[in-house]
Amino acid sequence: MSEHEARLHIIPLGGLGEIGKNMLAIRYQNTIVVIDAGLMFPEEELLGIDVVIPDISYLVENREKVKAIILTHGHEDHVGALPYVLKEINVPVYGSRLTLGMIEGKLKEHQLNDVKLHVVNPRDKVQIDDIILEFFRVSHSIPDSLGVALHTPLGIVLHTGDIKLDQTPVDGQVVDFRKLAELGEKGVLVMLGDSTNADKTGFTMSEKVVGNTFDELFGKCEGRIIVTTFASNVHRIQQVISTAAKYGRKVSVIGRSMVNNVEIAQRLGYMDIPEGIMIEMEDIDKYPPQEIVIVTTGSQGEPMSALTRMATADHRWVGIRPGDTVIISATPIPGNEKLVAKTVDLLFRQGAEVIYEREMGVHVSGHAAQEELKILLNLIRPRYFIPVHGEYRHLMKHAKLAESLGIPRHRIFVAENGSIIEVGRKKACIAGKVPAGRILVDGLGVGDVGNIVLRDRKQLSQDGIMIVVVTINRDQGQVVAGPDIVTRGFVYVRESEELIEDAKARVKEALDFCEKRNITEWAVIKAQIRDKLSKHLFDKTGRRPMILPIIMEI
Amino acid sequence: MSEHEARLHIIPLGGLGEIGKNMLAIRYQNTIVVIDAGLMFPEEELLGIDVVIPDISYLVENREKVKAIILTHGHEDHVGALPYVLKEINVPVYGSRLTLGMIEGKLKEHQLNDVKLHVVNPRDKVQIDDIILEFFRVSHSIPDSLGVALHTPLGIVLHTGDIKLDQTPVDGQVVDFRKLAELGEKGVLVMLGDSTNADKTGFTMSEKVVGNTFDELFGKCEGRIIVTTFASNVHRIQQVISTAAKYGRKVSVIGRSMVNNVEIAQRLGYMDIPEGIMIEMEDIDKYPPQEIVIVTTGSQGEPMSALTRMATADHRWVGIRPGDTVIISATPIPGNEKLVAKTVDLLFRQGAEVIYEREMGVHVSGHAAQEELKILLNLIRPRYFIPVHGEYRHLMKHAKLAESLGIPRHRIFVAENGSIIEVGRKKACIAGKVPAGRILVDGLGVGDVGNIVLRDRKQLSQDGIMIVVVTINRDQGQVVAGPDIVTRGFVYVRESEELIEDAKARVKEALDFCEKRNITEWAVIKAQIRDKLSKHLFDKTGRRPMILPIIMEI
Repeated sequence: MSEHEARLHIIPLGGLGEIGKNMLAIRYQNTIVVIDAGLMFPEEELLGIDVVIPDISYLVENREKVKAIILTHGHEDHVGALPYVLKEINVPVYGSRLTLGMIEGKLKEHQLNDVKLHVVNPRDKVQIDDIILEFFRVSHSIPDSLGVALHTPLGIVLHTGDIKLDQTPVDGQVVDFRKLAELGEKGVLVMLGDSTNADKTGFTMSEKVVGNTFDELFGKCEGRIIVTTFASNVHRIQQVISTAAKYGRKVSVIGRSMVNNVEIAQRLGYMDIPEGIMIEMEDIDKYPPQEIVIVTTGSQGEPMSALTRMATADHRWVGIRPGDTVIISATPIPGNEKLVAKTVDLLFRQGAEVIYEREMGVHVSGHAAQEELKILLNLIRPRYFIPVHGEYRHLMKHAKLAESLGIPRHRIFVAENGSIIEVGRKKACIAGKVPAGRILVDGLGVGDVGNIVLRDRKQLSQDGIMIVVVTINRDQGQVVAGPDIVTRGFVYVRESEELIEDAKARVKEALDFCEKRNITEWAVIKAQIRDKLSKHLFDKTGRRPMILPIIMEI
Repeated sequence: MSEHEARLHIIPLGGLGEIGKNMLAIRYQNTIVVIDAGLMFPEEELLGIDVVIPDISYLVENREKVKAIILTHGHEDHVGALPYVLKEINVPVYGSRLTLGMIEGKLKEHQLNDVKLHVVNPRDKVQIDDIILEFFRVSHSIPDSLGVALHTPLGIVLHTGDIKLDQTPVDGQVVDFRKLAELGEKGVLVMLGDSTNADKTGFTMSEKVVGNTFDELFGKCEGRIIVTTFASNVHRIQQVISTAAKYGRKVSVIGRSMVNNVEIAQRLGYMDIPEGIMIEMEDIDKYPPQEIVIVTTGSQGEPMSALTRMATADHRWVGIRPGDTVIISATPIPGNEKLVAKTVDLLFRQGAEVIYEREMGVHVSGHAAQEELKILLNLIRPRYFIPVHGEYRHLMKHAKLAESLGIPRHRIFVAENGSIIEVGRKKACIAGKVPAGRILVDGLGVGDVGNIVLRDRKQLSQDGIMIVVVTINRDQGQVVAGPDIVTRGFVYVRESEELIEDAKARVKEALDFCEKRNITEWAVIKAQIRDKLSKHLFDKTGRRPMILPIIMEI
């Protein structure tokens, strides 16, 4: 293929039209570079599903071309699918020191011991065939987050990663504005931009704001202070610790994932923990309340989290008591609103003061709002713009923002997972589609739960099941045992004997009906039973349990 | 009982520690007056449940004392349980004209034809034994809302109902501040106050604000305008119609419940609909887009609602198309956030412009925020204060507000459903408890679904069911048919033949084990099967389906 025919293919495999499972492939000739490999937590209707990961059949089909997976940062929606991906295609992984530090444990859990992990630093360059990867610092709600520019023979493809423009980040490491400006000045062919907060006006507040709030609250509190936040928000935890130090309080970290992350961040030098400030949870009661701060998991109201267990007096070492102040330093992820509200109520019931309101300044987002997005677009002024990371409305809002800044509409692509955005020097278009979608992980099964299983779970969850068993003597066509009826999740059997006896009578009618007409096909007999029972049960109860006739033959 | 021993019992039966199923009993000697009879929509974990209603066994036990049910307004969380209550105790019902108009249809559906409905107007007085009910006008998100003062021999008990202090309500009927002041001046013994927004600072904006936003938006829109809101928000619908009239647009109302409510409100004189403005949905396409406004249900993203069906091209008459502007004039009820977001995305995908952001001013709440609550408390300055209508945190916040205004803490009761708050002239206390809780309605069954059924539905919903059937010859103790295995909601059977065959082998092992040991008790055999299978399936799949062994005997 001569060079003037060369094309870039940009293929989002996840994270478009959804929040989560971010993954995007960039292909140039025989080289594919993958950015992120995230998971998503299942929506309510995916009953029983543990996690959702992207469909990577396109990568598997082109496995010999896939040369690198880049991780922009360590959040689950960017790294959580990595073990599943590496089991299919074991390729080198690039990421910052903290990001790779955080995934090591997970890879071990999955018995992935021969993964090639390459630590990269901001401004590092890495050559992958004809592409040079150039990493740059961004701010987000986890330290050591990166964006990446791919210098390809056709031009620069720039991916912001998850980004906010924090002018006063906790670690002093601001977004690499000058690198962004330099790339913009050189000319960026394609920009891929984080859209998560594209429907929020104004600026996202700095992480430091939360530190100031902590300072104010810690200064006033006379009892124990319990702060809950995301386990990966190392800077938030740092601010809790720093504020505790200022007010002479000891700090105990509770909750497995948070303990892990603090351990990793501290070991890798991402935290500044004053000597002697940390105490074990067993020792909390050795100090007076005004000398204690607890940082803990459970900010999403997760029923098994440390905070929920404290609030339900189910935690081994810590219980909530009057005088405690609990700070919910997080906002509910969409779908978790009720769980969080329930936790707040539980805490109040235990007598704690709870600070949870949005306007209290105890949480800030990790994603850029509209004014920041405008700054990014104006710094970079790409030829083509592709909003990524967001539900459809966020992508649309981001696209409209770009248009309002003068990027022509035909150079903005609101794409879908699986879209092939083909980019040449002179033009770009959506040139096709690769398989994309959600792969459901349930227990050990990856992809074995499909629509039929989910539909059945749905029906079972709503009205339960009625199982009808009959044993028939095949030779004589006679019922020799049954009908027996067993139900689960439908009615409380001890109070419904009449209903069950009636149901048996209906089954007998159906069997008689079939016998008289010499119907011997099981499928027809079962259908008869199902129809008769279904109508009967709905008339009596207004419910539609799954009806499962089983015919045994002797 | 001599009068100086007389006590008032105030007994919340629903709506405390929860949003919904509001109901409260007030008892003086042999007279019980009930305020509201609301339902609640089930939380996620109440699988398959249609609605939740209060436990009214206290009222049923004291049926001869219950003299009146007062409905403060027509929302489901205040009137939705009425048919169920009236089936148990048929007592006279008092409410405003619109409130009673809205429930008439529902009573007919339930074949309740002999209910004594009494229309009351603001400032009306009704004598019930020794109690005089006095109704007063309040503002809320449905017209004709009332609060009520009960003049008892011990003093005044004042219930705000759901209330906001709208200074510019659409119908010009402001809260009866002067009556509240007069009652306060006389001396209110107990105040029961709406706490729904007690954690919101400031003032709730006036309904008129939404009208202004509509005016602005309608003035700019060039295509069709589609507004979705709560079907009962008659004033919101009125404002859509008035604004449409101003801009020369026709209006079509779509969605069964909204059509019903508009019909009732119009018939009873609560709406002002200009001649000739309303059109049928079949006729929408006869007009150019800029002359059309559609008001419709679906503001909560309900899958079967008119708006959702329009957005999925599943509605018979109307489909969303580019150029349409959709205004979501509502905020999601907690728990509905994801459904609403999904609808917004669908609308964007169809090419519509969607106005949904909180800051756009297309919705205001119907409940008083903190500054309004303070005004109410200061107007009334009750001796005892009981916050009602809210989750525990709302009640706590409301209690703290009251305390901050100088009401002593020991005169404020943060109670629970079922608490008996005993009030005398000189003192008050929580004096006991009556049965209270949630009664689950599933189809035609009221209260027949309990914890066992729900637990089964939960398990079925997560991992499905595996049914194992064996027919055994009782005399010889031999298996004559089976084991047969049927699964639903567990794995996709066609792709899991090996797993099922393995499972059968495990069942045979269990049967052999029992046969060799001469175990003939079915319960033991079943337990053997269950244990063996359960372990096997968890090892192979990481899932725990319900395992249901059925032994047939011939």
